Amino acid sequence: MTQQAFLRVGLVQQPCGEHDPALNLDRSVGAIRDAAALGARLVVLPELHLGPYFCQSEDPLLCDLAESIPGPSTHLLGALALELSIVIVASLFERRAPGLYHNTAVVLERDGTLAGCYRKMHIPDDPGYYEKFYFTPGDLGFKPIATSVGRLGLLVCWDQWYPEAARLMALAGADVLLYPTAIGWNLDDSSLERARQLEAWVTVQRGHAVANGLPVLSCNRIGHEPDPSGHSGGIQFWGNSFVVGPQGEFLDRADDQEERILMVDVDRRRSEEVRRMWPFLRDRRIEAYGDLTRRFID
Amino acid sequence: MTQQAFLRVGLVQQPCGEHDPALNLDRSVGAIRDAAALGARLVVLPELHLGPYFCQSEDPLLCDLAESIPGPSTHLLGALALELSIVIVASLFERRAPGLYHNTAVVLERDGTLAGCYRKMHIPDDPGYYEKFYFTPGDLGFKPIATSVGRLGLLVCWDQWYPEAARLMALAGADVLLYPTAIGWNLDDSSLERARQLEAWVTVQRGHAVANGLPVLSCNRIGHEPDPSGHSGGIQFWGNSFVVGPQGEFLDRADDQEERILMVDVDRRRSEEVRRMWPFLRDRRIEAYGDLTRRFID
Repeated sequence: MTQQAFLRVGLVQQPCGEHDPALNLDRSVGAIRDAAALGARLVVLPELHLGPYFCQSEDPLLCDLAESIPGPSTHLLGALALELSIVIVASLFERRAPGLYHNTAVVLERDGTLAGCYRKMHIPDDPGYYEKFYFTPGDLGFKPIATSVGRLGLLVCWDQWYPEAARLMALAGADVLLYPTAIGWNLDDSSLERARQLEAWVTVQRGHAVANGLPVLSCNRIGHEPDPSGHSGGIQFWGNSFVVGPQGEFLDRADDQEERILMVDVDRRRSEEVRRMWPFLRDRRIEAYGDLTRRFID
Repeated sequence: MTQQAFLRVGLVQQPCGEHDPALNLDRSVGAIRDAAALGARLVVLPELHLGPYFCQSEDPLLCDLAESIPGPSTHLLGALALELSIVIVASLFERRAPGLYHNTAVVLERDGTLAGCYRKMHIPDDPGYYEKFYFTPGDLGFKPIATSVGRLGLLVCWDQWYPEAARLMALAGADVLLYPTAIGWNLDDSSLERARQLEAWVTVQRGHAVANGLPVLSCNRIGHEPDPSGHSGGIQFWGNSFVVGPQGEFLDRADDQEERILMVDVDRRRSEEVRRMWPFLRDRRIEAYGDLTRRFID
């Protein structure tokens, strides 16, 4: 495994609202090519980037959008990874068997192979995000994916609220945490509430970086997507993709509107330095953590 | 248990550097009286507020500073809690037996009784913070302390870097997380490094608020204290005591210099609202969290 001091990463913040998946994918591929031309060796796409965030309503017909893994998208992106000699992280609606679907992130290695995948473990279900209808909770656990650019602690969206997921990836040797995401505002909420939500989302992920001494890469979509059921005003995806270092310090952050590639040189040596100074893993009271596997302590 | 909608809390950000414990205590008692006069029903002091942060060096003679619990300080503060009819959170160097010491936070109930104590579970040891020499790791686990103002998820300083501690308190029914703290800068560090450290400290605790849908109260000391061993330039305690709500939103925050009482009305109903909107506890994958009790997954 090549271990240069710096890893140049590219996060693609883009809209994904076209109903023809080819149009969204064209946009992603263009950005991946641009990122590679700028020297990125790892490129990350937002969650479920092939189309509108379809979980705003519950419709069995939408399962037609799912595909197998490996399948058409991993073949196409694998070929691109090989051509550009980079690692690509993508996010797909996986059809595993009839009636068995997952929200799955995939890693394409620079030799074109599928390095591994992660099936989203924590599945949300709240107004506008009816994911429990579509996605079976992941059954692969929290295992970093070994690649030529390091061990990727790949998680997805709702996972980002769970310190357990971040910690388990760190304990399993992740070099970095990655969160392809699709999250936004309900425009019926007040501007104060919207500000709190966005700040909470950024803060909890920065907290994972701090607690685990790891860089965190979070890649979200932008744009407004209407609610096909007409029950709500749709979702205004809030962008704000970011990269932070192992003290939670911002290395780059997008705003809530711009379509752009975040290009960051992540210093691989910094985690070691930070963890020596703040050796949190040393002092975990593992013999006192057993109740973390309980739902609640009544 | 009285459950008014709002709980008025007071955090005492103060210097504790006087070598005569009575002088530091006088200062604390004055602030507690002021907070009570302003309507506080819960008052929180910084970590080990009776004196200079003695863990900058390792000296067996300093164990003379320790006291029993219950003991002189809990008696004095219990009488004050009774007089003012408030709950007081204090932080003491506990002598449990010859050669057996703890870093222990105590809760005095408004009837003057000792409602409970928490023995710091995670003990740091890094340059300037040689706590492993003095303090035996706590053996009481992560149990909220039931009081007339709610169930207090009382933790101490280094615990604040551990999502496990916050989560276990939340799972055990804590209404709020509290962190008496003594943390500061090594002035040999660059201003950028100091800024990152402070921001990481604030961020990880705000992250606990978000992940658990709970308010967090963090109370730190201020002032410069020299290193008695002369090995370093001492510690510049960075203050920045704060109160955040269950989305990690700031309700009040002090700066790194000012001696003051942070007075905040914490809305007890907000946790319920936030947790309904973002029901993280609902979706924890407890069957997949077993490895959290491992040191590392090799």
